[in-house]
Amino acid sequence: MSRTKGSRRSRNRNNARIGLNNITQPPFKQFSHPYSPVEVLSADQIESIHNTSLTILEEIGMKVLEPEARNIFADAGCSVNHQSEMVYLDRALVTEQIAHAPAEFTLHARNAVHTIKVGGKNVIFTSVGGPAFVSCLDKGRRNGSYEEMCDFIKLTQMLNIIHLEGGGPFEALDLPHLSRHLDLHIAQITLTDKIWQLTAFGNEVTLDGINMASMAMGLTPDDIVNKPIVATVINTNSPLQLDIPMAQGLITMAKYGQPSIITPFTLAGAMSPVTLAGTLAQQNAEVLGTITLAQLVRSGTPVIYGGFTSNVDMKTGSPAFGTPEYTLAAQASGQLARRYNIPFRSSNVTSSNTVDAQAAYESQMSVWGAMNGHVNILNHGAGWLGGGLVASFEKLILDAEMLQMFAAYSQPIEVNEETLALDAIKDVGPGGHFFGTSHTMDRYQTAFYKPLLSDWDNYENWTDKGSEDSAIRANKIWKKMLADYEKPALDVAIVEQLNDYVRQRKSGLSAI
Amino acid sequence: MSRTKGSRRSRNRNNARIGLNNITQPPFKQFSHPYSPVEVLSADQIESIHNTSLTILEEIGMKVLEPEARNIFADAGCSVNHQSEMVYLDRALVTEQIAHAPAEFTLHARNAVHTIKVGGKNVIFTSVGGPAFVSCLDKGRRNGSYEEMCDFIKLTQMLNIIHLEGGGPFEALDLPHLSRHLDLHIAQITLTDKIWQLTAFGNEVTLDGINMASMAMGLTPDDIVNKPIVATVINTNSPLQLDIPMAQGLITMAKYGQPSIITPFTLAGAMSPVTLAGTLAQQNAEVLGTITLAQLVRSGTPVIYGGFTSNVDMKTGSPAFGTPEYTLAAQASGQLARRYNIPFRSSNVTSSNTVDAQAAYESQMSVWGAMNGHVNILNHGAGWLGGGLVASFEKLILDAEMLQMFAAYSQPIEVNEETLALDAIKDVGPGGHFFGTSHTMDRYQTAFYKPLLSDWDNYENWTDKGSEDSAIRANKIWKKMLADYEKPALDVAIVEQLNDYVRQRKSGLSAI
Repeated sequence: MSRTKGSRRSRNRNNARIGLNNITQPPFKQFSHPYSPVEVLSADQIESIHNTSLTILEEIGMKVLEPEARNIFADAGCSVNHQSEMVYLDRALVTEQIAHAPAEFTLHARNAVHTIKVGGKNVIFTSVGGPAFVSCLDKGRRNGSYEEMCDFIKLTQMLNIIHLEGGGPFEALDLPHLSRHLDLHIAQITLTDKIWQLTAFGNEVTLDGINMASMAMGLTPDDIVNKPIVATVINTNSPLQLDIPMAQGLITMAKYGQPSIITPFTLAGAMSPVTLAGTLAQQNAEVLGTITLAQLVRSGTPVIYGGFTSNVDMKTGSPAFGTPEYTLAAQASGQLARRYNIPFRSSNVTSSNTVDAQAAYESQMSVWGAMNGHVNILNHGAGWLGGGLVASFEKLILDAEMLQMFAAYSQPIEVNEETLALDAIKDVGPGGHFFGTSHTMDRYQTAFYKPLLSDWDNYENWTDKGSEDSAIRANKIWKKMLADYEKPALDVAIVEQLNDYVRQRKSGLSAI
Repeated sequence: MSRTKGSRRSRNRNNARIGLNNITQPPFKQFSHPYSPVEVLSADQIESIHNTSLTILEEIGMKVLEPEARNIFADAGCSVNHQSEMVYLDRALVTEQIAHAPAEFTLHARNAVHTIKVGGKNVIFTSVGGPAFVSCLDKGRRNGSYEEMCDFIKLTQMLNIIHLEGGGPFEALDLPHLSRHLDLHIAQITLTDKIWQLTAFGNEVTLDGINMASMAMGLTPDDIVNKPIVATVINTNSPLQLDIPMAQGLITMAKYGQPSIITPFTLAGAMSPVTLAGTLAQQNAEVLGTITLAQLVRSGTPVIYGGFTSNVDMKTGSPAFGTPEYTLAAQASGQLARRYNIPFRSSNVTSSNTVDAQAAYESQMSVWGAMNGHVNILNHGAGWLGGGLVASFEKLILDAEMLQMFAAYSQPIEVNEETLALDAIKDVGPGGHFFGTSHTMDRYQTAFYKPLLSDWDNYENWTDKGSEDSAIRANKIWKKMLADYEKPALDVAIVEQLNDYVRQRKSGLSAI
């Protein structure tokens, strides 16, 4: 690894459109929502859902399996039944505590160019996180391996439209379960200099991620309490249950001031009511109850409101994604998150098992739900396939193209004397054309979005090139990008320190 | 053809979800936009574009090739130069005339169930109109034939999500050019009882459509002057030119009170400025100038504001569709149309040459532009492929699925005590599931959108069924639907009258 070379390349990538062979992408750049959100619910309807969710927390309660978490709630004056593991949260307490969550905060990357803002109108796109399987056109669907996981993370680094790594693209099933997160974090730290997401499965595992994230920046965990540098997803066990590993993860993250993306998996008709209003009320209760716990651990700790409501296929009971109900729930969840002034997380999802038209339209339905809902963090932004069981190399490229298009769409139309072009229209006159005019020549290189994957050739040229559909082209693109990958610079001493940490922890874990 | 059977079937189709073998689709039903539009321009920016477009009409003018049209403008006090064919439209005249265009009107179908409302918040989805080529997975891309054109129109009748036929899905290139429109109209009238779009290429051809549309309803052209029953697209020849066939078509439509969808083909960088603001100003000038002509022919005649702004690929000069610029222009065009209180037309477009992920995401980008822009008529709603040169049988099904999803998305979330489901959440309790509860059982059959094309099966079942992607499934669906097609009822005397008309006109045309 050449440190100097890595640094120079990283600067170049962020200063201009770069061509990788003939692959073009805009530079890394965070953007914000310029247009008003779409509100699918009235203010009154939002209040009904809000009030119902507070009643759920107060009267039905949440089952909290971790004793430390129950103690925290009890200390705050909640009615707690340790035998039934039930916690009943007073609406006044919830209202008071969630108000401490910051509306905006910064996530600091080890490469400052990749530092990003969370909340407000800021948008963050992530790569997929968590599937068990990996897939590509050449080898089909298969178990994830560490080597291929590293390839996927390299592409996450290469694709400028990805602002935040997604928490490991898929499980490296060829590595031992207990220490797999340590190898993942080494890959996340050394193969990308973007911010990444850790595994928050229990106190120790979460602390590993926090330790390693700090180390990568030459800091200690105590240094980062007011400087978020890593994020994670905390799932409730819907309906209304918080399990031990997730509660421990949340508490550890909150102790160190690191942001948790609190996301119930409310699948309408299965883990929540068959009606969207009821599902949103339950989702809201689970998010608010869990945020209350985070704020009780450390007031003002950053959290994100995660909306992941979808519905089941009532014929089979299996989850469906990117449905009209999903879109509606995403936009409604954005409204709820904004009601509390808490950053909002949504996702890019599909049920399709292959990189076809269905994969694209279900993803589009979910991303429009998110974008019109003013999403702040789009988790699983690129690479998700097959209901989230698969990370696909081709879908990664397809999604990157779509996300780039959303970023371009979010650059508002400029209206001024120059752009209104009255003189150019006069010069060209009726029946003429604008190809050669100075108004066109001055602007044509940057006037329009340049695609990464789309083929705009006419039929004859397209067939001459081999009639390749977008999945086949995506396959070529990720391979070309991977061949061009260069590791970002990282101090050799830090790499050694990280490797020592992992070695030490692995020997401890294997001794258990 | 059995008339009785046809009628019964038609009733059934509109009363309940129907299963065609195992193909399910919601009944024919027009819906309206329930949420606020997305406004990508400020009110001030809209005024700048509006004012620039009036300056264009006043100072640059429009080239109007048809003498009758120039005379109409001259009679209204416009400055006209018959030698240069230029017409200069005073802004006061334009402002006055466009105010006569109705904000809403009804299009009457021969089957009253298929009568639709245009304007306001009403949505109309159409089938593709006008390509030269047809394509399907079995035979690839080829010249259109009458037989296959009839098959496409049959599917237009079968698909309940299509509210309006698109004007002939593709050219029947096996028929003589001069009389082809007559055969098309026979097919449109007899194979579907939905409203259709005529060919408005000159006075005589347009009058043929008006005559035949009237005849099909047992009316004369004089009867329909205040009862719109047929529509057409009038394209300006951008920049700023109205040719003879289109001007004649517009004048004839206006004389008989039939709606023209006035649509400039403003391809930014080629037929209009490379900047979107300039392109929108030019588009607006062309639409307003042409609407002025229609209103001068017959004050209050129904018209539709057509927005079709896209951009060229600056590398090749060929048009690109479903780009971020396209989405922005669609939403901005919706704002302009609403400023004038005139119904708004947009489109569902893609550059892709095959029914792949690109076809789906470009279509989605354009339909979200239209839907967020409060489109009233989505022309080319289903079936457009390859930059509009191709009508695809599989894309027809793919689009129908996507349009059905937009219709489902446009059913707002119900929020009330029943749907908030507090009792169900209480009954199920933390850690339970909602599958068997009475709250679920009472609603599961209608709770969620049921797909036409999407496959939500898990990977194992999907591979067992043959790993079919959505294009292959679409191929099976249109064939199954076509096999189930039944002709809608039509009085035998009317059919004979239509055939006589066509015979007579054909002998006249061949005598020329």
